Amino acid sequence: MAFEKDYEEIKERFENYYNSFISGLTDIPEPLHSSMVYSLSSEGKRLRPILFLSAADVFGAEETESLYKTACAIECIHTYSLIHDDLPCMDNSDMRRGKPSNHKVYGEDVAVLAGDALLNLVYELLFDAVTLASNESKDKFIRAGRIISERAGARGLIGGQVVDTSVDMTKHVSAKLNYIYQHKTADLIGVSLMAGALVGGADESEIKKIREAGDNIGYAFQITDDILDMEDKDDDDKMNFVKVYGIKEARRAVSDKTALALTQLSSLDKDVSFLRSLTKHLSIRKN
Amino acid sequence: MAFEKDYEEIKERFENYYNSFISGLTDIPEPLHSSMVYSLSSEGKRLRPILFLSAADVFGAEETESLYKTACAIECIHTYSLIHDDLPCMDNSDMRRGKPSNHKVYGEDVAVLAGDALLNLVYELLFDAVTLASNESKDKFIRAGRIISERAGARGLIGGQVVDTSVDMTKHVSAKLNYIYQHKTADLIGVSLMAGALVGGADESEIKKIREAGDNIGYAFQITDDILDMEDKDDDDKMNFVKVYGIKEARRAVSDKTALALTQLSSLDKDVSFLRSLTKHLSIRKN
Repeated sequence: MAFEKDYEEIKERFENYYNSFISGLTDIPEPLHSSMVYSLSSEGKRLRPILFLSAADVFGAEETESLYKTACAIECIHTYSLIHDDLPCMDNSDMRRGKPSNHKVYGEDVAVLAGDALLNLVYELLFDAVTLASNESKDKFIRAGRIISERAGARGLIGGQVVDTSVDMTKHVSAKLNYIYQHKTADLIGVSLMAGALVGGADESEIKKIREAGDNIGYAFQITDDILDMEDKDDDDKMNFVKVYGIKEARRAVSDKTALALTQLSSLDKDVSFLRSLTKHLSIRKN
Repeated sequence: MAFEKDYEEIKERFENYYNSFISGLTDIPEPLHSSMVYSLSSEGKRLRPILFLSAADVFGAEETESLYKTACAIECIHTYSLIHDDLPCMDNSDMRRGKPSNHKVYGEDVAVLAGDALLNLVYELLFDAVTLASNESKDKFIRAGRIISERAGARGLIGGQVVDTSVDMTKHVSAKLNYIYQHKTADLIGVSLMAGALVGGADESEIKKIREAGDNIGYAFQITDDILDMEDKDDDDKMNFVKVYGIKEARRAVSDKTALALTQLSSLDKDVSFLRSLTKHLSIRKN
């Protein structure tokens, strides 16, 4: 139970800041403002900002405004990508996080612009984080901003979404699934850990280890999502790991990737007990 | 003719860098890559990067990689916003810059993601610009990145687009037109000048003057667009300055705003001859 308590504690700390950040979104015209707040304030696990804050803590980062702004930026990337993924021209999802998706409430035009506004807000936050950082930590926040921007972009998250949405999956399925899982899911989960390590002052070899751990955690996370989807929901047209390799192989992959991630985390020679518990928890979650 | 020659010269210098930047967009999956390149490589005036580079030159900024990356970022903001504005759920435009709009060629899903990818690329470029800047100019590029992110966002460009697209224009037309013109058009034109001045090391009073000049140039630019639209194209449902105030008042507003901008530029006590010529040229342009 210690893990759940720790998770809730760090989540509450994040959400205290996050909610005041949302309240500070003023001077934005309607219906854009309501549409942005609608998706930002949906219930969520806050997994990515918690990974970021935990990795930062492992490396001894101070609890600064810059740290929390970066955590909010990471949550905004996730939220904008969900709004755009749900659009009729993409996954056409009517529901998200237990309520109607953004475009069902505000219309497609506003949902496109709300997603754009949240993506742009990511960088308002990251440039603020750099501006507010102390002189000695400024370069760390610049590196974090830069690596987040790379992994969020056409070579990262958006590239993964394009292949998932629009590429013919009848050939080279295995390579394409790999590409989608790495970029659509593992890139953001991995960079949350990497950025946390960066702002905590990790060295190159530590960054490499945490990147590999993050990518394995992300890969296992996506396969677990697929397993839960197969159990819970109506089938859709999309190819996924479970459909291609079967449920047994999927469970094995989750277990293997998780074991790898745990080893990589332990090799850091830091107190990674919370991150290890979180990694294990993600592999056996039921939602 | 000196002005046209100067404009072409600076445009060619920008496009040399810009074209190599486009060629460097590798490791991006298809059809995302083609879709991004399709819109980036469309013919355009390159007005905003040219305003940025000219303002930087007025204040003596060095011709660095950081300078040109920032210029490319500004063009990317403009291009992404056109792709999303043209979507069926927004302005539903089939043509853009003399060729079919992005979604007509690549489909709506890819066009949404290409716009997202270009918006994200803006910040990959701006973080690169900061990273590559010399120690003494790093803070200037951080300030430029920060102000660009503000004006591109929900309180700027995107806010203007929301009001233009989705707000009832039967009441308070004058206030709403003002909001749209300031944010949808003048924000990006104004911040191109401001960011140029910032990276050139302008002081607060100079930034204020160039901001005011930029906003007036942007406002006059949008009304001129409306005048040209009324002459050239089929009418659409959208409210604009010409429909509300008539063509005579529109021409007078262009002339007034342009005169104000020229005075504000001259008050800088710098060599602003190119920027003054450009401002005059924009007010009498035919396309």
